[in-house]
Amino acid sequence: MQSLRSFLVLGLFRRRRLLAAMLLGVGLGIGGLVQAQAADTDPLPSWNEGKTKQSILDFVARVTKEGGPDFVPAKDRIATFDNDGTLWVEQPIYTQFVFAMDRVKALSNQHPEWKTKQPFKAVLDGDTQALIATGEKGMVQIVAATHSGLTTTDFDKEVRAWFETAKHPRFKQLYTDLYYQPMMELLSYLWANGFKTFIVSGGGVEFMRGYADETYGIPPEQVIGSSGKTEYAMWDSSPVLMKLPEVLFVDDGPGKPQGINHFIGKRPIFAFGNSDGDKEMLEWTAACVGVCFMGLVHHTDAVREYAYDRTSDVGKLDKALDEALAKGWTVADMKNDWKTIFAWEKPAP
Amino acid sequence: MQSLRSFLVLGLFRRRRLLAAMLLGVGLGIGGLVQAQAADTDPLPSWNEGKTKQSILDFVARVTKEGGPDFVPAKDRIATFDNDGTLWVEQPIYTQFVFAMDRVKALSNQHPEWKTKQPFKAVLDGDTQALIATGEKGMVQIVAATHSGLTTTDFDKEVRAWFETAKHPRFKQLYTDLYYQPMMELLSYLWANGFKTFIVSGGGVEFMRGYADETYGIPPEQVIGSSGKTEYAMWDSSPVLMKLPEVLFVDDGPGKPQGINHFIGKRPIFAFGNSDGDKEMLEWTAACVGVCFMGLVHHTDAVREYAYDRTSDVGKLDKALDEALAKGWTVADMKNDWKTIFAWEKPAP
Repeated sequence: MQSLRSFLVLGLFRRRRLLAAMLLGVGLGIGGLVQAQAADTDPLPSWNEGKTKQSILDFVARVTKEGGPDFVPAKDRIATFDNDGTLWVEQPIYTQFVFAMDRVKALSNQHPEWKTKQPFKAVLDGDTQALIATGEKGMVQIVAATHSGLTTTDFDKEVRAWFETAKHPRFKQLYTDLYYQPMMELLSYLWANGFKTFIVSGGGVEFMRGYADETYGIPPEQVIGSSGKTEYAMWDSSPVLMKLPEVLFVDDGPGKPQGINHFIGKRPIFAFGNSDGDKEMLEWTAACVGVCFMGLVHHTDAVREYAYDRTSDVGKLDKALDEALAKGWTVADMKNDWKTIFAWEKPAP
Repeated sequence: MQSLRSFLVLGLFRRRRLLAAMLLGVGLGIGGLVQAQAADTDPLPSWNEGKTKQSILDFVARVTKEGGPDFVPAKDRIATFDNDGTLWVEQPIYTQFVFAMDRVKALSNQHPEWKTKQPFKAVLDGDTQALIATGEKGMVQIVAATHSGLTTTDFDKEVRAWFETAKHPRFKQLYTDLYYQPMMELLSYLWANGFKTFIVSGGGVEFMRGYADETYGIPPEQVIGSSGKTEYAMWDSSPVLMKLPEVLFVDDGPGKPQGINHFIGKRPIFAFGNSDGDKEMLEWTAACVGVCFMGLVHHTDAVREYAYDRTSDVGKLDKALDEALAKGWTVADMKNDWKTIFAWEKPAP
C-alpha cells in the first residue's frame, strides 16, 4: 500500500468550518471561556509540557527574535507539512482511496463491465482480499478510472459532495473532522509568527485543495501534491480542463523536495511529517543555512487514534524515525505529547 | 522562434532593487517630490488618461467595493501576468536565450567538441544564420546543455551572476532594468487593493524566480513557469537537486491554464499578457463567475521600445489580438497608453 500514495492524484473539497473553533474550550460555556483565555498565553494548549513542545516554542522564538543571531525575515519563514498522518488521520487507509472506491460504486452503472473485471469487481463486491491481490496495478487503475474523464470543475464538485457525508469507519466522524487539534494549534502559532505554511503531500492536489482551505486555513495556492495531466478544451465556446488518466508529478519521497523546488522555489526552515515518505523533505529542510526545525508525528496511541510505524502498510515510519533519532529531530509522541488529539474529543475530567 | 518559449526551462537570479524607486520622480529632487505626491492620488501615473487606464481603475473599483454586486473577497483576488513582453522587454530575443547562449560560450572550454558541432558551433562563431538553421532542435539542445548537469543551487548562482552584468544590446541597460514602469505601477496598485499577483510565463521558473522577487516584488512561490525535471541525490551527506535535461512542464499556450490549475488551484479574476501564448490564459480567466479583467500589451512603439504583433517570431500577437478586439478585452497600446515605458527614461520636457 505504500506505493499507493504515488497514485492518489487530483481532487478538491470544502466545508464550512470556523478556524475560531479550533481552540479547545470555545463554545463550552464558562469553562470553555476560561480555557480560551488560558490559550492566550499558551499557543499550544493541546500539547503536553515537555521537550517536544519546548522544541517548537524555542525554534519559533529564535527565528523571530529581531536582531538575534538566528533571525529569519518573515518572507523566508516557509513551513511545510505532510498531510495524511501529519495533519489528519490516514488509517486504516488514505481518505482519498476511500473516495476513489466510493466513486467506483457510484460510477458502476455506467460501467457494467466492472461487475466482472478486476480490480473494480473487488471494490463492488467489498472483497478486500481480492482488492489487495490486484496490487499496485489495481490501485492505479482505480484512481485513474475515478479521477479522470471529467473536468476539473466537475471533479471538484464530486469531491466536495463526497466530503459532505462520508464518515470514518471507526470514529464515525466526517473525514474533515479528523484533523489533529495539536497540529491546528501549531499552524495557528506559526501564522501568528509570520510563517507561510504549505501542505506538501503525496495526496492528489485537487482532492486536498478545497478542504484544506476551510478545514486547515491553508489556501489552494499553498497546497502541493501529486497531480495528473489535464487537457485544455473548448466546450460550447467555454474553456475546460479535462482530467487525463496520466500522472504529471508524484509528490512523495524525493518528490517532496522536488515539489518544494517546483512550487515554492525556497527551502523551508520548518517541516513536519510522519512517514518515510517525508524523509527527503526533512533532509532537504535540515540542509538549511541557519537554524531549521524538522519534526515527525509518531503514531503511538492505539486507544485514542492508532499505533503504527516500522511495519505499517499505510504511513510506514522506519528509516525516517532512525534518522530523526540519530540527528535529534523532534519526534512528537502522540500518546505522550498530545493532550488532545481531536477537537470533538471530550476533555479529560 | 515561437516554440523556443517551450524550452526556456529553469532558473533564478536576484538583484538589489528598491521597489520604492518604482514610482517615477522618486530621487529626482524637488520636481520628483511633486511628482511622487501627485502619484498619491493617481495610482497609475505612467498611464495616459483614456479608456485603457479607466478600464483598470473601474474593474478594481468594482471588485473591491464591499457590498457591491461585483465584490470579490481578497482571498479570491488572483491576478496572473505573463512575463516576457508583458512585464519586461522580450525583443530582439527572450532574455533567457541570451543567457543560454552566453553559457554555451562560458562552458565551451569544457566542451571542445562544440567548436565543430551544431548548434553550439553557430553560437561560438556568432553565426546567427547557422543558428537559426538548426531550428527548434538546435534551441532545445542549447537550453538542455546549459540548464542541466548542475544543482539547482549552482544554477541559481550562475543566473544571478549573469544578471549582475548582462546588458541589453540596444538599450545598454541591465536586463533587470528593462521592466515596464506602467506594469510595475499596475502590480503595486493591485497589491494595494488586496490582490495576490502571480507570474505565469513560458520562461523557465528557476530563471525568473530570484529576479522576480527583487525586481518586481513577486516572491518565488508566486512565479509559475516552465520547468525541467530534477533528481534528488546525496553529495557528501548533503542533499542536492540535480537539474536534468528533461522537460517536466511547459507553461505556455494551453499550458498556462494548466499551470494555473496546477499551482494556484483557483481561477484568476485578472490576467495580462501580450502574445498568442497568453490566449488560453485569458480565455480561462474570461470564463470567470462574476466580473473579470483580461488585458493585452500591444507593442506599438518602435521608437521607445519595439513595434511587433502578427508576424513576429518573438511574442507573436495575432489570434489573441483578434479575440481581444472581438470580446472587448483591454488592449494597452504601448505608444498611446504609456506615458513612460522605462523607469530610467528621461521624463518628457
